[in-house]
Amino acid sequence: MPKVSQKGQSIAFSPIRKLVPFSDAAKSRGIHVYHLNIGQPDIETPKGAREAVKNADIPVIAYSHSAGNLSYRKKLVEYYHSVGIEITTDEIIVTTGGSEGLTFAFNACMDPGDEIIIPEPFYANYNTFAKMSGVVVKPILSSIKNGFALPTIEDFEKVITPKTKAIMICNPNNPTGCLYTKEEVLQLGEIAKKHDLFLFADEVYREFCYDGAEHFSVMHLKGLEDHVILLDSVSKRYSACGVRIGTFITHNKEVYSTAMKFAQARLSPPSYGQILGEAAVDTPKEYFDAVITDYVARRNTVVNGVNAIPGCFVPMPKGAFYCVAQLPIDNSDRFCQWMLEEFNYNGETTMMAPATGFYSTPGQGTNEVRISYCLKVEDLKKAVKCLEEALKVYPGRTN
Amino acid sequence: MPKVSQKGQSIAFSPIRKLVPFSDAAKSRGIHVYHLNIGQPDIETPKGAREAVKNADIPVIAYSHSAGNLSYRKKLVEYYHSVGIEITTDEIIVTTGGSEGLTFAFNACMDPGDEIIIPEPFYANYNTFAKMSGVVVKPILSSIKNGFALPTIEDFEKVITPKTKAIMICNPNNPTGCLYTKEEVLQLGEIAKKHDLFLFADEVYREFCYDGAEHFSVMHLKGLEDHVILLDSVSKRYSACGVRIGTFITHNKEVYSTAMKFAQARLSPPSYGQILGEAAVDTPKEYFDAVITDYVARRNTVVNGVNAIPGCFVPMPKGAFYCVAQLPIDNSDRFCQWMLEEFNYNGETTMMAPATGFYSTPGQGTNEVRISYCLKVEDLKKAVKCLEEALKVYPGRTN
Repeated sequence: MPKVSQKGQSIAFSPIRKLVPFSDAAKSRGIHVYHLNIGQPDIETPKGAREAVKNADIPVIAYSHSAGNLSYRKKLVEYYHSVGIEITTDEIIVTTGGSEGLTFAFNACMDPGDEIIIPEPFYANYNTFAKMSGVVVKPILSSIKNGFALPTIEDFEKVITPKTKAIMICNPNNPTGCLYTKEEVLQLGEIAKKHDLFLFADEVYREFCYDGAEHFSVMHLKGLEDHVILLDSVSKRYSACGVRIGTFITHNKEVYSTAMKFAQARLSPPSYGQILGEAAVDTPKEYFDAVITDYVARRNTVVNGVNAIPGCFVPMPKGAFYCVAQLPIDNSDRFCQWMLEEFNYNGETTMMAPATGFYSTPGQGTNEVRISYCLKVEDLKKAVKCLEEALKVYPGRTN
Repeated sequence: MPKVSQKGQSIAFSPIRKLVPFSDAAKSRGIHVYHLNIGQPDIETPKGAREAVKNADIPVIAYSHSAGNLSYRKKLVEYYHSVGIEITTDEIIVTTGGSEGLTFAFNACMDPGDEIIIPEPFYANYNTFAKMSGVVVKPILSSIKNGFALPTIEDFEKVITPKTKAIMICNPNNPTGCLYTKEEVLQLGEIAKKHDLFLFADEVYREFCYDGAEHFSVMHLKGLEDHVILLDSVSKRYSACGVRIGTFITHNKEVYSTAMKFAQARLSPPSYGQILGEAAVDTPKEYFDAVITDYVARRNTVVNGVNAIPGCFVPMPKGAFYCVAQLPIDNSDRFCQWMLEEFNYNGETTMMAPATGFYSTPGQGTNEVRISYCLKVEDLKKAVKCLEEALKVYPGRTN
């Protein structure tokens, strides 16, 4: 019997999904599970966008252009203009989710053995996409103590080698919720410029900025036009994760044309998703205002709730809909599994993602969990209550 | 300015798309171009399947299960049973087109430097997916003289090395239209078994078999359950290329669970496409009967038409909707471009794919083109007429 790949064996199961068998088992025992493990918003996809799909009457669901329908790319130019990003239709490739944009960036810019620097904790799937293309991830630690702010220039320069080809950030950040300031993004630009590196930025949570904070995109960096690749997605913006539509954007013509080779190989992004995405650009501002109001209330419920539990600490995030909480526990993998397997409070429990899966450095994140606040405030309150009660009786409590 | 990857530079542009700028230019000069270069059927997507999307009322377009919706996988079990293939829902991963299934197969089964044997000419994008995962393609030549039949056991064994990890076929074949016989598939199974290799089979044209010929799937091979990976797609079956839905199927539990790591990393396949695919399984047999009748007429128009042109030869294919024609020309790349750039017959011309792009061995395919017969018979007649007239005046004609 032929053996699976070593690469495949070396990849960890997704930290947000590996405990699913335990949550399924809990449910089958009649326990209600609050899913704080996954960033699946419960917000409605804008009606106008869904209607566009219902109203589409296309006799042949054909391949689209490999870069995506021109009509959609034109609409995307409008959208990006509205957030202060100036691009043209031939600088956009519509991708199958943000995920595919990442694989295009890795493959177009990097060869096996090349290194990419990513502040950790980071979105765990970056690791898988890196391994698929033979790229080596060099993590640099950000700290819960300062709200997971961008590491210093010195921290970056310590890990830069002749093999370093790129830096990647996610801003606002998944899993930490940290929104990098303009100064931090400018600093990143300087490092990329000085060391002639690509700068990949995953900005899928651009709209989710709170407390009046403004998002500063890598696309605003002057003189970095040939360095920057923007990865984006409609999944979170319009609560349309299932349509699998994202964008790969760069001013660098050589990178664009190389990425198009990979885009052509997979033929085209999904047709229905493009229709939804195109219509979604016209989503009224009121939709986002309501969503942001919701998320701020949810964030405050979770962050204030968890901070009120003795021994717990969560920095107040300014973006996205995640936070990383430090808990008084021995081992976050064991704790999260225990909450599903052995604990319940009045027939309820909470599922969270162990933060270990978001670190590349072994041993990090063992007393941290990622909490996603995509549920209604009432449910979040109950989920936090479960956590509080669990920590009172967890056998591996540390203080 | 940082440089693009060597990998990216080494990948050729798709042979079916690289001449698009020349066809665009021809169109802008008012010339009508018959597209025999691309396998985009003009057949309507089944109405019932399209209606399912129109009727779907889903407030939140959420991520689906990474393996695809269970309801769809159940329906797929039904579909495969109807074609004599017995599988269970936990042996299927719904993929984003057949393309993604290929990347799962390469990554789950093979490491950088591992070799895969593929009879050539072969679907050009296999090369790109192989390069993305560092896999080395070892081509073995099939010949137009015997209708691109499967190479012999000896041909395979000549290129098997300790690095060989898999054999891949496309059956019915793109680009040749060759339908491998039961005996040929059994022979492949023997080689895979003897040398402990994976056997990847792209069977997306399963329904397109002509002249009463029957398709024999690799899934029918006894004792090869742990070797076989079936790659499939709804694109051609239901003329729904744009939905980007395929399947990755294996009885091998270790391969399945490894492939699921890659599936989880990209989160889920497109939601709307799954709805369409699920409904499409109920497409009535009459739809396929009509389609097959159409394609046989189209095939006969092209094959008989081209064979009637002096100096041309096309073997009569038994499957898919492509054929490879040998033409009396010096260079198929030059000829195909010339037909778009310099030639027209009564304001019309024909676009074909140079066969060079379907061979991995340099120098092969220079007097061959791939012809896709996805147009109406009347158009195909005119397209063949253009080819005939072009060959009369092409300066690089060889005999």
